[in-house]
Amino acid sequence: MARPAPRVRHDFRSYATTLESNRQGLILKVSEGAKSSPKRLSQFWLRDQTLWNASIASNPPEVSFDSVMAKGDISGMADLTEKIRGYGMCFVTNTPKTPEATNELLEAIGPIRNTHYGGFYDFVPDLAKADTAYTNLALAAHTDTTYFTEPAGLQTFHMLSHTPPPNKANDDGSLGGQSLLVDGFYAAYRLKKEFPEAYETLREVRLPWHASGNDGVAIVPDRAYPVIEASPYKFHRVRWNNDDRGVVPLNVDVDKWYSAARRWDSILRRKRNEYWFQLEPGRVLIFDNWRVLHGRSAFEGLRRICGGYINRDDFISRWKTSNFPRSEVIAANMQLK
Amino acid sequence: MARPAPRVRHDFRSYATTLESNRQGLILKVSEGAKSSPKRLSQFWLRDQTLWNASIASNPPEVSFDSVMAKGDISGMADLTEKIRGYGMCFVTNTPKTPEATNELLEAIGPIRNTHYGGFYDFVPDLAKADTAYTNLALAAHTDTTYFTEPAGLQTFHMLSHTPPPNKANDDGSLGGQSLLVDGFYAAYRLKKEFPEAYETLREVRLPWHASGNDGVAIVPDRAYPVIEASPYKFHRVRWNNDDRGVVPLNVDVDKWYSAARRWDSILRRKRNEYWFQLEPGRVLIFDNWRVLHGRSAFEGLRRICGGYINRDDFISRWKTSNFPRSEVIAANMQLK
Repeated sequence: MARPAPRVRHDFRSYATTLESNRQGLILKVSEGAKSSPKRLSQFWLRDQTLWNASIASNPPEVSFDSVMAKGDISGMADLTEKIRGYGMCFVTNTPKTPEATNELLEAIGPIRNTHYGGFYDFVPDLAKADTAYTNLALAAHTDTTYFTEPAGLQTFHMLSHTPPPNKANDDGSLGGQSLLVDGFYAAYRLKKEFPEAYETLREVRLPWHASGNDGVAIVPDRAYPVIEASPYKFHRVRWNNDDRGVVPLNVDVDKWYSAARRWDSILRRKRNEYWFQLEPGRVLIFDNWRVLHGRSAFEGLRRICGGYINRDDFISRWKTSNFPRSEVIAANMQLK
Repeated sequence: MARPAPRVRHDFRSYATTLESNRQGLILKVSEGAKSSPKRLSQFWLRDQTLWNASIASNPPEVSFDSVMAKGDISGMADLTEKIRGYGMCFVTNTPKTPEATNELLEAIGPIRNTHYGGFYDFVPDLAKADTAYTNLALAAHTDTTYFTEPAGLQTFHMLSHTPPPNKANDDGSLGGQSLLVDGFYAAYRLKKEFPEAYETLREVRLPWHASGNDGVAIVPDRAYPVIEASPYKFHRVRWNNDDRGVVPLNVDVDKWYSAARRWDSILRRKRNEYWFQLEPGRVLIFDNWRVLHGRSAFEGLRRICGGYINRDDFISRWKTSNFPRSEVIAANMQLK
């Protein structure tokens, strides 16, 4: 039985001493450095991020396609982006079971990212693609595109169909292909709490990540990046894919790194942290690839899945512009910390 | 009269003590940290980057469209990508004067990046776009998309036509619209040499960058970034666009930052650092937006310009896979420092 994961508030200690609420909103008194000045922040900026584990299965965040796409009403989009930001994931229900509707949904959030695999995708298993995503194999929880300077922000799966092989029926649920999500920020929180030294190791050691499967493609980020990027007060980004990981640098304690990686992996694989579910036509999954790891069980037959990546910058832009007054967004953006 | 800028070799002091050449190539003895191991590197990995100033006008790097697009012969693509990497820029001559050919050229290098302005672009001045790029105004040397977590890597301009306003002839060169490039790495090199304290200030102080012109769009990077990103041994990336820059953070010495910014700006505006030229149909300009700043003079009439952005990761991938043996590229990528 999975216990609920804790709710974690943003922590402003890094640059504020006091946070007072009054009728106008919240007053943040900035005291970092020599100068200090009070700033008024809308309390809307201070919403929670909720870390989760398997218990999210009983009530996963969802919004309806119609509410998100309603003309002249931004509240459905605000709800969707707020949920993705808060939980790192959201389902969009009652989506028309077509690639066109899925594409339209994604473009309403932000521009679809173009990579060496293309932009909006619509595929069945294809070994010619030289990537495990295009196989029928089970995939352990991982993040996508660890080899980019800026990994994909949002990732989307809309399963349009799952047809059985000729010798099997479709209706007994035996074809496999269950989907898996794990909250990487919750896993990082557990690692920090249970094995603080391992946490620091995965935060400090920068690794080579690379994409080398396709002819004519050999992608690496602009520099080596660690598994966990975080400030003392906030988790920022997780990279985790064994297939993309290069050699652990020889100038660090390699044994220590592998020991830390085993701790991390064991937390990711705990049953109580794994959220398993079945993708269904009409129920689009969108999640934050900087935070949430995804995987699946092996499957038989043919699955047709469409979706796309959206850069995190564009997603955050849509989250802000749909949830907050424009003047506040601009003012806050110009003073980005 | 502009003197030639210096040739700057990559410096491996950060992680190597000795670099020996023998019949097999170069032996790099790695001595950072507790462990050490010799590694064989192809000498091809050690090519120069050439910093430049206005004197590049006498012999700017160029390759022909036909050589780059030759089927079954990678040498033209190798030449193009090596020149962009070495100089931060290259012209592609004798390109068919169409958006289709330009698009084909870019896709041969890598996937075209999709942003809130779209993917491949083909435009004439349009004030509805809420960006200075779409005006007739003069633009001081700047980099594009400073507000993205990962700014655009390559940037392209292909001027398809420049038609005069009704009252003017086309053939006397009086319509304006000269293009400007400045080597940001050379400017950083001068700043470091002449005003080391200003260099450190622009390298250390992280600024808010933002895109706020378009309704429904309010983009900021994942964190604040400095104007100059560099290790002690290598320039990495430059961000510079006054229109995208937010407020200088109050927890730093603001006067010191503005003083450093004035030094930097004065170097960028030195006549001997400015490379001015006229864009022409058939002569495509491609440059590295992480390194080279671009601008233009004001112009009359209508200019039709097409082009697109390519992410730096995809460009570097094409540079490596066209210039080096695949096995060496993969081996080096897996050990990325």
